[in-house]
Amino acid sequence: MRMRHKPWAEDYLKSHSDIVDIDGSRAGHIREWFNNDQPIYIEVGSGMGQFITTLAAQNPEINFVSMEREKNVMVKVLDKVLEQNLSNIKLICNDAVELNEYFVDGEVDRLYLNFSDPWPKNRHAKRRLTYHTYLALYKQILKKDGELHFKTDNRGLFAYSLESMSQFGMYFTKINLNLHEEDVEGNIETEYERKFSEKGSRIYRMEAKFHS
Amino acid sequence: MRMRHKPWAEDYLKSHSDIVDIDGSRAGHIREWFNNDQPIYIEVGSGMGQFITTLAAQNPEINFVSMEREKNVMVKVLDKVLEQNLSNIKLICNDAVELNEYFVDGEVDRLYLNFSDPWPKNRHAKRRLTYHTYLALYKQILKKDGELHFKTDNRGLFAYSLESMSQFGMYFTKINLNLHEEDVEGNIETEYERKFSEKGSRIYRMEAKFHS
Repeated sequence: MRMRHKPWAEDYLKSHSDIVDIDGSRAGHIREWFNNDQPIYIEVGSGMGQFITTLAAQNPEINFVSMEREKNVMVKVLDKVLEQNLSNIKLICNDAVELNEYFVDGEVDRLYLNFSDPWPKNRHAKRRLTYHTYLALYKQILKKDGELHFKTDNRGLFAYSLESMSQFGMYFTKINLNLHEEDVEGNIETEYERKFSEKGSRIYRMEAKFHS
Repeated sequence: MRMRHKPWAEDYLKSHSDIVDIDGSRAGHIREWFNNDQPIYIEVGSGMGQFITTLAAQNPEINFVSMEREKNVMVKVLDKVLEQNLSNIKLICNDAVELNEYFVDGEVDRLYLNFSDPWPKNRHAKRRLTYHTYLALYKQILKKDGELHFKTDNRGLFAYSLESMSQFGMYFTKINLNLHEEDVEGNIETEYERKFSEKGSRIYRMEAKFHS
C-alpha cells in the first residue's frame, strides 16, 4: 500500500515501543512481550489495520500481532490501537521474510493474509506471500494444526495460492469462491475489501493447514 | 442427466459390443480390448459425449474410455462414435463405483470429470464424484503421476472438491477460476458447458495429482 511519506512516522512509532517494534528488539521474545499464555494470531501485511484491530477488540482472550513493513501505513494501525485502548495487540514493523526471527518455532496459532499484493507477473512470483519460501516460514512458526486464513479479490493470486499451497503439502478446510454471496458468519471486512466488494468484485477466502 | 426412457437403448448398445460394455464382460481386460499400448484416458460421467468424442477424434494416439451409467444417455455417445467412425474409444455403461473392477491398478493415465452432479445437500456429499471414497478409487487405477482434470460451473462443488481433494493428499497443478475469461488453449466444451457459459455462468477448472 502506497501512502504519502510521513517524516514523523518513525518518531511516532518509536514513542510507543510498548506496542510497536520497529528495530527488532522484541525478536524471539513475543511471548514475554504479551506476558500471558493466550494464543497468538498474526496478520502479515496489515495495511491500515481495520481487520486486526476489529478482531482484537472482539477477542480479548487472544493475542494479536500486526506485521506491516511500511511505517507510513503502520501509524494508521497504531492510531486504531490507541483510540480503542487495545491491550491484546502488538505491532511489528518489518518484512514477512523476518517472521522466523520474531517468532519461536510453533509459537503461532493462526496466521492471516488479507488482500496481499498479487504480484501478477510470473517473474515476480517469489514475492507473493503464498510462494513456497513464505509457506516454509509459516510452517515453521505455526503450531502443529495451526491455521492459515487468506482472503483476496485477486482471482489469479487465489488460483496461484491454491496451487502453491497444495503443492507444498497444505490442505484446505474451508473455501469460499464468492464470500459475500455465501452464508458466512462473522466476516470482518478490511478497508480494501469493503471498497472493492461494493464495486462488485468477488472476494475469495480459504482456511488451510499443513499436512503433518 | 435425465432423458426420456428409450426402450430400444439396451438392444442398440448390445448390438455394438465391440465398442460398448453393458454387462461387465470387459472388466479387467480393457487393455486387451484396445489391443495396443497407447495411454488410457477416461471420462467418468460422459453425458452425451461431446467432450470425449471430440478429444478422441483429435488424439488418435490415445485410448479413451467413456463411463456413463445411463443407457439412455450412452446411446448419444455411441451415435457420435459411429458417425465419426472413431476406433480409439470404448464405452462402459456402469456406475463410477465399479471403476476398479474395470481397470487394473495403475492402468489409467488421466481421468476427466466434467460437470458432475453437484449433489448440493450435505447429506448427499458421499455421492459427489470428488468424495474421498471416489478419490481412493481414482488413486488406485491411476498411474503414479496420473492426472485428474475436473470442470464444473457449480461453485459449491468446486470449492468442496478443492477441500476434499487437498485433504485426501492431492495437489493442484493448474486452476482456472473463470475458464472462459482466461487464456486457455484447446478447451473442449461439453454440451452443458456451452449452454451455461452462454448464459453467463462462470466455469471452474482444475488439474490435479496425488502426492505419492
